[in-house]
Amino acid sequence: MHALLVIAHGSRRASSNEEVMQLAQRLAGQVSSKYQLVEAGFLEMAEPDIAQSMQACIAAGATSIDVLPYFLAAGKHVVTDVPEDVEKVTAAHPSVAVKILPYVGSVPSMLDLMAGICLQD
Amino acid sequence: MHALLVIAHGSRRASSNEEVMQLAQRLAGQVSSKYQLVEAGFLEMAEPDIAQSMQACIAAGATSIDVLPYFLAAGKHVVTDVPEDVEKVTAAHPSVAVKILPYVGSVPSMLDLMAGICLQD
Repeated sequence: MHALLVIAHGSRRASSNEEVMQLAQRLAGQVSSKYQLVEAGFLEMAEPDIAQSMQACIAAGATSIDVLPYFLAAGKHVVTDVPEDVEKVTAAHPSVAVKILPYVGSVPSMLDLMAGICLQD
Repeated sequence: MHALLVIAHGSRRASSNEEVMQLAQRLAGQVSSKYQLVEAGFLEMAEPDIAQSMQACIAAGATSIDVLPYFLAAGKHVVTDVPEDVEKVTAAHPSVAVKILPYVGSVPSMLDLMAGICLQD
């Protein structure tokens, strides 16, 4: 079973974390052809954290997990922190295929999204 | 003169901040019909900060500034920190029309962008 895990930074504002959880649920509807499970987790300041959310996927039967970093730029979180936390779980579950996808700020369509906000408003 | 100011979080990694500056420059080409100037600034950990980047726009002749928060969720930064820093400059320059646009994570097309990453990879 193929799982998608959206990893966001996490906030002290519960409503911000809830926003990410709801986004992941809406995303599930758009990617259901590929992923039978879509979960969300947080790097810090909120739960489930990366380890907890990966383990939830595995407990639900995931044999592969694609991790989508919900981050905008290749700062320390994207380059170091998220991969390190993911790797710890991966090392403990060698039979699960784990892949980190491009972070959301890295794709060309981000420019179109930004231009859309600017020109519409 | 109408200016667009992209405000990102800022990172300890210089390359991450440079990524944002380059994104703003590429965005300038897409929104040139509306904005004669596009700048970038950072909430923390990098310069120019919000005050410096807004003042640069004003010094360049901006009579209005649209601020685009390059953030993904409505955490403390989007709800409190960015508006507070913007308001300080706005209060000192009442003749400049300043508007904060929707943050990038708030628009429906974010879901399509994320689905695109997941289904393409």
